[in-house]
Formats: sequence, structure tokens, C-alpha cells
Amino acid sequence: MRKLYHYPLDPASRQARIALAEKKLKVKLEPIDPWSPDKSFLELTPEGLPPTLIDIIPGSTVTISGARAICEYTNDGSPRHPLLPEDRVERAEARRIAAWFDMKFTQEVNAYILHEKIEKSLTGSGPADPQTLREGREHLQFHLTYLSWLLERRDWLAGNSFSLADIAGAANISCLDFLGEIKWRDWPDLKRWYQTVKSRPSVQPLLQDRVAGLRAPRHYADLDF
Amino acid sequence: MRKLYHYPLDPASRQARIALAEKKLKVKLEPIDPWSPDKSFLELTPEGLPPTLIDIIPGSTVTISGARAICEYTNDGSPRHPLLPEDRVERAEARRIAAWFDMKFTQEVNAYILHEKIEKSLTGSGPADPQTLREGREHLQFHLTYLSWLLERRDWLAGNSFSLADIAGAANISCLDFLGEIKWRDWPDLKRWYQTVKSRPSVQPLLQDRVAGLRAPRHYADLDF
Repeated sequence: MRKLYHYPLDPASRQARIALAEKKLKVKLEPIDPWSPDKSFLELTPEGLPPTLIDIIPGSTVTISGARAICEYTNDGSPRHPLLPEDRVERAEARRIAAWFDMKFTQEVNAYILHEKIEKSLTGSGPADPQTLREGREHLQFHLTYLSWLLERRDWLAGNSFSLADIAGAANISCLDFLGEIKWRDWPDLKRWYQTVKSRPSVQPLLQDRVAGLRAPRHYADLDF
Repeated sequence: MRKLYHYPLDPASRQARIALAEKKLKVKLEPIDPWSPDKSFLELTPEGLPPTLIDIIPGSTVTISGARAICEYTNDGSPRHPLLPEDRVERAEARRIAAWFDMKFTQEVNAYILHEKIEKSLTGSGPADPQTLREGREHLQFHLTYLSWLLERRDWLAGNSFSLADIAGAANISCLDFLGEIKWRDWPDLKRWYQTVKSRPSVQPLLQDRVAGLRAPRHYADLDF
């Protein structure tokens, strides 16, 4: 059976999980500790980090690493349940936003907040540094303002249909929400979008993830928050 | 006419230039100072950074930002001169490697070496910090070892055909070569690949770029180096 190596609170892994579920592809989830991956995982992938998909196709078993490659590969497999808009310009917009999450949002928000709150806590590297968290939160405010601005104008992040941009958004926002980092009352447009995203069968299982040593706020799995 | 806002020594801008040239699309190049972009450019794109493509399509003018979106959009426009392999698994490998350059290589090499040598020099923020350069060069050695390992086994970075992975590779390696950061005699497989890449008509114009205040080594534009 298809297998996905992942870490529950890793936005890249969450993108792969949502994309596979949107395409109705069954997959066995195999959790990986990103801070000390075991040798057999490292032999599997040059990236050394989840997500890594093992897919079984006629005649062979293939290994695909990284959120971007896995999401596009998954979408490439069949025209059913498309994850990219039909229009070429909207497709470019979806890819722009997905790449923006992978690069800018990851470097300016996740590298501060997820690193301080998850990695430090789970690897026993001491308490979160308040100054680093403060900087990450400033960047987060700035980027949520931009996402809200988009969602005032559009139903979905890249336009009129659910796409890889929303998958990247859901993966990143849900990790920050797990950590109680999003004050929803300040972001009504983002909240409307996230309520719709949370109700998708592809996203629901992520809201059931539990991570030893970390506790999500009460509203995390609620559709009405 | 189609227009591309770019910065000559920016690997992301170079990816867009090579992709457009590979698809035989004519484009007017408009240079941007990434460290103080003018207001009209900032109004054009939420990213605030090159590359940004202005394309004229029947009925409208569209703006596409970011290397990933521009390269895929360019390739999407027509099946001629494909920039992704026909095989779905090879296509995933090309996208994995392109994303690896956009994220890992950018964060671990460019953020050190290009930042210290180009940005600091051109913005008058003082001399390059030797310790930062040393760290960037250590990462570079590590990543060139990985690329060489791939190229011992393959003609092109993602397999049997030139693809978006080679475009990402050419864009990044050519910027580092402009700065004299690659000791070619240590990397014979990478050198063979880069010789072939340099001879492509899509890459040739990049080797003619001149940047005030920075001088490329003599071998930079030579096909025989």
C-alpha cells in the first residue's frame, strides 16, 4: 500500500496529507521524528526530512520527496478532483501562493514560532525565546493581513476554486492554530475561509492529531470556533 | 510586449529568464533594485521582489510573480519545447529538485554567500563577514557533493532530459560562478553538466550580464573553463 512518511505538526507533511486525501488516495501514515530521523528513512530520501511518499505504480515502487513534488505528482495522477484551476493564469496564481507559503511564510513565521514552540520543547533545548517569538508574531500579523486582503476579494486563496494554494494555507495555518497563535476574532475573512477548509474531509483527520508534550487549544478541532 | 522585472544576479530572476528563452518567448527585461524597489514595482506585485512577469494574453494583461509560478506558467503555455519530462515520476523528480534549490540551497548557500558578497557590497553595508562566508561555503561544498552524486548517474539533474531542475541549477550555479565561488577542478561531473548548460542559447545571455561594482572571473562566460 501507498505510504507517507510525515510529522504531524510539519506544514509540509500536512500539505502532502491533504493533497492525497483530496484526490481520494488511500495512504498509510508513518510518523518520523524530523529532529532524529532513523537511518532507514535517511536511506530512502536525499532530503532527510518528511514528507516522503512511497507510491506503488505498475512495475515499480517510487519515492517522491517534498511537499511541492508530492502535491503536483498527486494532482498529475488523474484529472478527477483537480487541485489546480483549469485557467492557466489562475493556475499560476495558485502556484505563486503555494510557493509563497513554502518559502516566505516558512522562513518568516514557522522558522520562528514552530521552531521555538515545537522543536525546542520536544528536543529539550530549553524554553522558547520570547524575543524570537515576538519577531515571528510580528511577521505573522503582517502575513495574515495579506491573506485577509486576498480573502476579502476571493472565495479561495487563488481565486474561484479550491487549489494547492488553499492546501498550503490550511497546512500552515492549522499548525499555528494548534499552538494557539491565531486570534480569530481579528481576522473575519480568514476565519470564514478556515471554517470552510476545516469542514473538508481531507482536513478533518489532521485536527485529530495529538502530539505528546503539546496540547492544542479547545477550539482547534471545532468547526464553530 | 511581454516584460520581465528582474535583477541580474538573482537566481530566481535567472530561472524566469532561462525558462522564457527555452520556450522561445521574447521578453523585454526591466532591471529592479531588490534592495530599494521603486513604488511602481511594489504596486505591481505583492511579493515586492523580482522576478515578475507581465504577459499580454488575448483580452488582458496578467502579472505573474515568483520563479516557480513563472516557470510553470511559461511551460504551461504550449507543449513545444517542454520543460518537464513526459513521465510523471520524472516530472516529480524535476519539481523536487527545483523546490530544493528554491528552499534549501537558497537558505543555506545564497542567504550566506550572495547576501554577504552582493547585497552588502551594493548597498554599502560594510565588508562581507568572513565567518558567514565560511559557513555558506561549507554548505555549498556539501550541496555540490550531492549534485555531483546525481550527475554521476544522470545526464541532467532530474534524469534523461533538460528540465526545470536544470533551469534552477543553472540559475543558482551561474550566480555563484560569477562570484568565483566554484572550484571547477574539484567537480568534474558538475563541470560537464555546466558546460552543456552554458552552451544553451537560453543561458548565453546571462553570461553577458555586467553589474557595476562587481567583476566576474575571466572564465565566467567561457564555454571552455
